[in-house]
Amino acid sequence: MLADVLLGAPLNVITAGPDLFRAAVAAQGVAVTPVDWQPPASATGLASLWCDAVDAANRIALERLLAAQPVLVDVRPAIEVVPGMTQDTILHAGPPITWERMSGPLRGAIAGALVYEDLAATREEAEQRAARGAADFDPCHHHAAVGPMAGVTTASMPVFVVENRAAGNRAYATLNEGLGKVLRYGAYAPEVIDRLRWFRDVLGPALGEAVRRLGGIDLRALIGQAVQMGDECHNRNRAASALLIKALAPEIAALDLAARERARILTFTGGNEHFFLNVSMAACKAALDAAHGVPDSTLVTTMARNGTDFGIRVSGLPDQWFSGPAEIPQGLFFPGYGPADANPDIGDSAITETAGLGGFAMGGAPAIVQFVGGTAAEALRYTRLMYEITLAENPAYRIPALDFRGTPTGIDVRLVAQTGILPQINTGMAHREAGIGQIGAGLVRPPRVCFDRALEALAREHRH
Amino acid sequence: MLADVLLGAPLNVITAGPDLFRAAVAAQGVAVTPVDWQPPASATGLASLWCDAVDAANRIALERLLAAQPVLVDVRPAIEVVPGMTQDTILHAGPPITWERMSGPLRGAIAGALVYEDLAATREEAEQRAARGAADFDPCHHHAAVGPMAGVTTASMPVFVVENRAAGNRAYATLNEGLGKVLRYGAYAPEVIDRLRWFRDVLGPALGEAVRRLGGIDLRALIGQAVQMGDECHNRNRAASALLIKALAPEIAALDLAARERARILTFTGGNEHFFLNVSMAACKAALDAAHGVPDSTLVTTMARNGTDFGIRVSGLPDQWFSGPAEIPQGLFFPGYGPADANPDIGDSAITETAGLGGFAMGGAPAIVQFVGGTAAEALRYTRLMYEITLAENPAYRIPALDFRGTPTGIDVRLVAQTGILPQINTGMAHREAGIGQIGAGLVRPPRVCFDRALEALAREHRH
Repeated sequence: MLADVLLGAPLNVITAGPDLFRAAVAAQGVAVTPVDWQPPASATGLASLWCDAVDAANRIALERLLAAQPVLVDVRPAIEVVPGMTQDTILHAGPPITWERMSGPLRGAIAGALVYEDLAATREEAEQRAARGAADFDPCHHHAAVGPMAGVTTASMPVFVVENRAAGNRAYATLNEGLGKVLRYGAYAPEVIDRLRWFRDVLGPALGEAVRRLGGIDLRALIGQAVQMGDECHNRNRAASALLIKALAPEIAALDLAARERARILTFTGGNEHFFLNVSMAACKAALDAAHGVPDSTLVTTMARNGTDFGIRVSGLPDQWFSGPAEIPQGLFFPGYGPADANPDIGDSAITETAGLGGFAMGGAPAIVQFVGGTAAEALRYTRLMYEITLAENPAYRIPALDFRGTPTGIDVRLVAQTGILPQINTGMAHREAGIGQIGAGLVRPPRVCFDRALEALAREHRH
Repeated sequence: MLADVLLGAPLNVITAGPDLFRAAVAAQGVAVTPVDWQPPASATGLASLWCDAVDAANRIALERLLAAQPVLVDVRPAIEVVPGMTQDTILHAGPPITWERMSGPLRGAIAGALVYEDLAATREEAEQRAARGAADFDPCHHHAAVGPMAGVTTASMPVFVVENRAAGNRAYATLNEGLGKVLRYGAYAPEVIDRLRWFRDVLGPALGEAVRRLGGIDLRALIGQAVQMGDECHNRNRAASALLIKALAPEIAALDLAARERARILTFTGGNEHFFLNVSMAACKAALDAAHGVPDSTLVTTMARNGTDFGIRVSGLPDQWFSGPAEIPQGLFFPGYGPADANPDIGDSAITETAGLGGFAMGGAPAIVQFVGGTAAEALRYTRLMYEITLAENPAYRIPALDFRGTPTGIDVRLVAQTGILPQINTGMAHREAGIGQIGAGLVRPPRVCFDRALEALAREHRH
């Protein structure tokens, strides 16, 4: 063979990039090892963005992100506080999507929400109503809101109100229902609807009264403590939930309610180790919204999934989504379920990773591997890797296991494109069919195309 | 010189053991580096204890320690539940001691307790009463009880009741008062006495009712969770306190008390990050008492300090204390205080280290270094070192940072004597004068003589 003739020994070739190279060499009978590194989709686009103007824009956006002071100030029905909310609005997680393209769990959650709002009597009636366009679908993210998994938020649902005292903006998220058969995972059984009505009638008003009496709860301080206690505030919220309940308990205990209801409120919230998740998400949203809309900034301000598409937004192009197909998470399944049951990645909860928590802070939350899979060493590796694609270390959120280094914060589209390293997200997994609920938890990444498209658009905008 | 003549080069000598060697070499003009390793006080005694009979005894004692199932079952006035308690009994921390030899903070706490019990009107009157022998002093440890710092426990004080469901024994500890001006650090101001009376009249009865309604709280599970959340359950109890309050809150909120009192109970307990300490100590005491009194066992079942002496007890010689002078802890001082203000080591709280928590579990609680001094790396080193002098790893208490290895548990007097490694304790620091309170926190070790004396006595007993 040619190689043998030229070099006097069998040849081993490693190829990167287009398959053309691998195929051409292999056709000559040479052993080929392809590696999956790819050059940035737009190398010239990337080069044009490494400039003082973008650096300066990113400094402004990053400063706003790190300066955020999220404070839990109230719990109110969505219709009273969420901007643009109407009786017919159905907010959902992720980028915009039509009913036809929605996955099972999102459709299930919408059906459940319509029944809960007394806008339909059955799932079938609800689906017909949704299919004929009688509901106004819109992403939570377009209304300063975020929702885990399906993220479905309707008029009468109580929402946490988080105020960013540094910038004055507010963000919103529904109350967490716990695990198993819950609306956000696409379940709509009577027990799901009953729980939501108790939220509306008792839990929401009680939490709102308690938070107002306390004059607000400093979430930056609380999250900072929780990170030192092994939470990453996405899929591990054990410490943060306990700290939040500890703060609320004196006021709940003093409420003018039946003793039984006071006890039920503290039993329900105390029994839900994910109770803090939605608060964490609203805190992250309040911080990132303040950093959104800085011209020329390549900072990622949103990562969100609707169960079909994964979409990101960047600060410098505030009105655009850059989307690609959502992937299936890999992880641990509850007994009786497996990968074939899993819906593609869904939920706004990747707002935590976007703000430097969640998968980015897993190194400080080694016990999470018991829930999402992997080892403590891998969790630490994920966090270390995320420093490669972020612009800062958050001084408010420090990881003891890394000698109190701040969590990697502020994803730069340029760094993702240049390194090929994708953000590491941990996530719950929903069954792909409506009505079933959570089936496990695991790890997932965004499709790379989101970042390639954002980079191209940023470079195009930058040239103008 | 001789060395030069014999070896043809300058000599450097390292000496261990008696100073005689160092001096003899130095006298010949040779450079000497002394190291502080010492041979076991009783090498033949130690050798005699490395035998099947002692190993078998230790297996029994260790099994009882690891099998313990401590459950918080009640809160009651000491007089109702603590064995041998009378109206005139004053329990204190550490080994037995007379009034004349007591340090300032222990005297201050006793004076405060006598005022609290209406047995004296002033500190002076209380001290006169104590000095003339009108109070029956006895170690907490002789009454199945433990108390942090001064450890002073009197008849009407409410105590946590912890039942070891594996062995059926019970252990007791007072309620934690928080930091600063508190009885256990030797303060006796009116605010200290008022707080204790509120404990007696409101907090104690309320906690007791809540615990009874819950049917008990599984402390092994709770401590296991807290260790995974960065507590070591001696000087860091942030997670455990929050988890305990989360468990109690629903019942507290439902109590038939004024709303103001329900709120005050949860505000006070929620505001005290050390609230769990006394519960942790009673849980450790309940586990270790079950392992006490196994003939031939060299397992350490008590380490305790009265502010003057440091005493240990071993399983095989249940009625003896082996004591030496308590040392001054080294650590961080509150503003305005320094080493000259510190009392020698005091308190029964080293029961946590004896049970494999506290300083032994510091590697899982890196944030504690902000309170006691040092670095996260040192905390990990202390835990790793403690595996050298312990017989087991506790499967119930696992440290994520050590890939979920169990905490080093069960100190063996033989291993301490053989390695020269002393147990690592972290501790609060009291002012050496009565009436002032806590002035800092730090690290300390027992005097080695405690272990030498225990070893000699065990070897003597073993020969008979």
